[in-house]
Amino acid sequence: MTNEKMKDTALEDLGFGSRMHSKRRFINKDGSLNVERTGYSNWTLYHQLTESSWIGFFMHVVFYYVLVNSIFAMVYLLIGVESFGGIKSGSLWENFSQMFFFSVQTFTTVGYGAMSPVGMTANWVASLEALVGLLSAAVATGLLFSRFTRPKAQILYSKHAIIAPFENGNAFMIRIANTRDNKIMNLEAKISATWYEEVDGSMIRKYASLKLERDRVFLFPLSWTIVHPLNEESPFYSSGEENLRKMNVEFLVMLEGYDESYNQMIYSNTSYTCEEIIWNAKFKMMFHSDEDKGTVLELDKINDVELMDIKNDE
Amino acid sequence: MTNEKMKDTALEDLGFGSRMHSKRRFINKDGSLNVERTGYSNWTLYHQLTESSWIGFFMHVVFYYVLVNSIFAMVYLLIGVESFGGIKSGSLWENFSQMFFFSVQTFTTVGYGAMSPVGMTANWVASLEALVGLLSAAVATGLLFSRFTRPKAQILYSKHAIIAPFENGNAFMIRIANTRDNKIMNLEAKISATWYEEVDGSMIRKYASLKLERDRVFLFPLSWTIVHPLNEESPFYSSGEENLRKMNVEFLVMLEGYDESYNQMIYSNTSYTCEEIIWNAKFKMMFHSDEDKGTVLELDKINDVELMDIKNDE
Amino acid sequence: MTNEKMKDTALEDLGFGSRMHSKRRFINKDGSLNVERTGYSNWTLYHQLTESSWIGFFMHVVFYYVLVNSIFAMVYLLIGVESFGGIKSGSLWENFSQMFFFSVQTFTTVGYGAMSPVGMTANWVASLEALVGLLSAAVATGLLFSRFTRPKAQILYSKHAIIAPFENGNAFMIRIANTRDNKIMNLEAKISATWYEEVDGSMIRKYASLKLERDRVFLFPLSWTIVHPLNEESPFYSSGEENLRKMNVEFLVMLEGYDESYNQMIYSNTSYTCEEIIWNAKFKMMFHSDEDKGTVLELDKINDVELMDIKNDE
Amino acid sequence: MTNEKMKDTALEDLGFGSRMHSKRRFINKDGSLNVERTGYSNWTLYHQLTESSWIGFFMHVVFYYVLVNSIFAMVYLLIGVESFGGIKSGSLWENFSQMFFFSVQTFTTVGYGAMSPVGMTANWVASLEALVGLLSAAVATGLLFSRFTRPKAQILYSKHAIIAPFENGNAFMIRIANTRDNKIMNLEAKISATWYEEVDGSMIRKYASLKLERDRVFLFPLSWTIVHPLNEESPFYSSGEENLRKMNVEFLVMLEGYDESYNQMIYSNTSYTCEEIIWNAKFKMMFHSDEDKGTVLELDKINDVELMDIKNDE
Repeated sequence: MTNEKMKDTALEDLGFGSRMHSKRRFINKDGSLNVERTGYSNWTLYHQLTESSWIGFFMHVVFYYVLVNSIFAMVYLLIGVESFGGIKSGSLWENFSQMFFFSVQTFTTVGYGAMSPVGMTANWVASLEALVGLLSAAVATGLLFSRFTRPKAQILYSKHAIIAPFENGNAFMIRIANTRDNKIMNLEAKISATWYEEVDGSMIRKYASLKLERDRVFLFPLSWTIVHPLNEESPFYSSGEENLRKMNVEFLVMLEGYDESYNQMIYSNTSYTCEEIIWNAKFKMMFHSDEDKGTVLELDKINDVELMDIKNDE
Repeated sequence: MTNEKMKDTALEDLGFGSRMHSKRRFINKDGSLNVERTGYSNWTLYHQLTESSWIGFFMHVVFYYVLVNSIFAMVYLLIGVESFGGIKSGSLWENFSQMFFFSVQTFTTVGYGAMSPVGMTANWVASLEALVGLLSAAVATGLLFSRFTRPKAQILYSKHAIIAPFENGNAFMIRIANTRDNKIMNLEAKISATWYEEVDGSMIRKYASLKLERDRVFLFPLSWTIVHPLNEESPFYSSGEENLRKMNVEFLVMLEGYDESYNQMIYSNTSYTCEEIIWNAKFKMMFHSDEDKGTVLELDKINDVELMDIKNDE
Repeated sequence: MTNEKMKDTALEDLGFGSRMHSKRRFINKDGSLNVERTGYSNWTLYHQLTESSWIGFFMHVVFYYVLVNSIFAMVYLLIGVESFGGIKSGSLWENFSQMFFFSVQTFTTVGYGAMSPVGMTANWVASLEALVGLLSAAVATGLLFSRFTRPKAQILYSKHAIIAPFENGNAFMIRIANTRDNKIMNLEAKISATWYEEVDGSMIRKYASLKLERDRVFLFPLSWTIVHPLNEESPFYSSGEENLRKMNVEFLVMLEGYDESYNQMIYSNTSYTCEEIIWNAKFKMMFHSDEDKGTVLELDKINDVELMDIKNDE
Repeated sequence: MTNEKMKDTALEDLGFGSRMHSKRRFINKDGSLNVERTGYSNWTLYHQLTESSWIGFFMHVVFYYVLVNSIFAMVYLLIGVESFGGIKSGSLWENFSQMFFFSVQTFTTVGYGAMSPVGMTANWVASLEALVGLLSAAVATGLLFSRFTRPKAQILYSKHAIIAPFENGNAFMIRIANTRDNKIMNLEAKISATWYEEVDGSMIRKYASLKLERDRVFLFPLSWTIVHPLNEESPFYSSGEENLRKMNVEFLVMLEGYDESYNQMIYSNTSYTCEEIIWNAKFKMMFHSDEDKGTVLELDKINDVELMDIKNDE
């Protein structure tokens, strides 16, 4: 009964709907949604270039640089090398090379001047290329700025969730830490769960938002273990490991806070499937006090768990 | 009675006032307000250049580029070609061309050097142009950055609203979808209605904010059908198609959410007039589950409706 | 009694304190605070350059440009013109001019090359200047971007406040309008008042926040007349013109909203002193409906008031 | 009892946990957290370069500039000076110098042209360097913009906290002021305290959030004295100087407001240890009224306190 009510609430909180039947996880480990869009073209090259890896980004930049200069080099070649001062006419390849380097010198506005346009058409095309070069530099500036000012991969999640004794029962726990020295203020956590249930013979997707022992910290200096007690208020009260696996439960984690260094809200998502839960374990402490350095947070210990020897007497 | 109270609330929510008598729609399909300002000049070229289409933007850039260089070319011509090194004096057109290209090389800071200023005045003007060029590049950088970082045309609305059976009565429904892979968090919807009513012989504009079945989703991964039930709490309870048309009702839609990729709030508006409502129809599902791709959202199906065969027994 | 309570609330709302004794207005017409800071140097050149007028900004830019190039020109002169290629040694002024233009060509990275550094020292200084030039261009880009993306002078206030009949009594009213086509969402208004009162023989500054008939509009498409009814809940209930002048009341106006085009919160302040109130007047309508243009908002009519012929029978 | 409850609340507010045993202060005077991260590499050079001092920043820029040009100079030297036009071959040092200056002219896109690449390899490397130069300028632009648009060191704290008579008892007070003319809106203050207590033989860290006489001001034009009354609701009620020192109490101050000029939220932290409290003192007024200048805020008086002659009769 309680669960029914919680499901309804959760339905309002998320936006998936009960008819979504994919067997795959809803939210990927990296927090992206497992949805593909078709049928509408939305130019998101800029978006991709700010989201991609640095290597990918620089490969795009170099590719664009070579491509644009090659195109202009070919145009200059068509116009004819005699339209340029300082060119030694030679084989096609030699001419193309010289035109390519002239193009680079124009695009980047280096303009040594050892080569320079003489003819009318050559001058017009070079004028266009210089403009293209300036605008390209402007775009690159914007892209780099966007990349630098977007806080990424800042919150580290424990690889596994654990289910361990807590108060008089068990609790579902995950651990997070801030990988940077940036201060994150007012960090808030939400955990929802979703699973399949047979209702009147057909499989229906169900949702529940899970009650947390504490859902907010004002500062986030160290690690934070987020705890959902598996008590009477939980939809998984008295569900054992077998049961959760059969229901194919996925735990959706949503974090929201303010990054003081970047002056903006940050959001982070991940999810844990049943395969990513360790039962009867507890997280080992991941910080210690050091005389010289003060408190030391050891980020490489975030996944360290300790298996417990428990008699299941519940 | 309820309606009177709702109207008052709505009056506070919007900002139009009851004396606004235009027969035209309040909010255009693209979300802009149908209001024209006069009598106060407010330089908004920057605003226009960030809001315009990409083609419009580049046409402005090229126009400005040609214009500024033409002006400087004329100034250089007035100073005299003999003030420049590397110029072959010829016809007026030839001289102008050379001065134009010299101007381009200065403005873009390419500065090949085949042409260069020699005289004092020529040098001063070229110094000024180089500064103008640098500042222009700075403005272009800002404009491009603004354009790229403004999320646009992201939310797709169904072309028509529908009125269809819902629970024990009818409901007014529209459907929206996110066209991008950006995550939109905490999306909130408001729908208001506005119409004319004769009060004491004069036409008065009335407002009402409409109660929604659900007014918020935390994530917005798929499509969302926003539903206003036409029940006792609605000002349009028991109003048929004829009636709504006679009142010339316009439904104003306001959305508000947080775009995680751009790290900013997004707002989106649109409106539906009576002519844009389809009666007795329902939206066809626009996503399906695919073994390989997971859930697939088909954005081109957003307008797909199915006419229903209903006996109007209410 | 009510007023005492209101004063306390207002004291918490503002941050002036009761001991601030200046006879001058608290908040200037342009919204700036009438406070001067001494004793702590805080480098705010960037701040000034983004807040100043466009003419002031460009004068700063040109001044900096001439100054930096003059300094480098003098350094080059000290190094000696013989360290540069392409220079025709002449009088001191001729040499300085050539060095100045060489400096410009280096600073702006135009680098025609007709003049170029040959000696070691000359090359080092030119290398430094090119770096200074690049960084200066970077700063200029940032400044221009900041200036463009800061919404300014957007909200227009009526020059005068009016006190006019409203419901069964009088009301204090001001009128505002949005000068731009930008949508301002969720605009909220607060009005406070401050005046001197003799308490136990010494003058004490008092505050009160004033209750508004409506303190928020969701959209702000037209003008908005903000109304404070002078009823029993007002500290100025039954205060006549004489009385307000004697108390030297100042009305502090604070607006807060979200500018959709600039994607940021906007705040606007102003104040009205007793000298800026017109009694027994009402604002003339400043918008009308036009067949071709829809609703037309005439911003130049914001100050238009109509004096009323009233028998003061209260 | 009350204290126990407050501790729990505070535990939720902050994020330190009761097992953190460092004897050092939690929050440094400059507001940074006293925590060191290990075991996870997170590239934060950009972050460091926006947070460092201006001198540090420019030293990094110059270092990078010399380094990159030296590397390219060495590559050009390896390619051979005969691959360049305009070079006078000489000693290794002379050749390196010329290559270095050629590199600078390429990197900054000055490109005088007195020296220019002739050979194929030389041209390729110069093309690469011009690209590196453009991207470096883009990064510098972003860094400078970030630095300028981050409000820093804006809020000035009194060096010492004071404990002084207030109402019928004592109060803990600190004083803050805004060093800039920027308007800070909606400034909110929180003060927490943390100390060690022996519980069952082991030292446990305790927390409490302290109740403030007033925790928010709408405008922040002058100084603000933040007051925590040491009354029955305070965990330090009736604690004398000795007592606080023994408990080694640290007062954590957290401020949050909106900077209107920079259009962003600002957060500021600091802390006061017991050694930084002056007992039986009061802050001297730090503003006065001036006929010409209006209200003058003297920021250098923020630390001015007046010792009081009090008979401790509590």
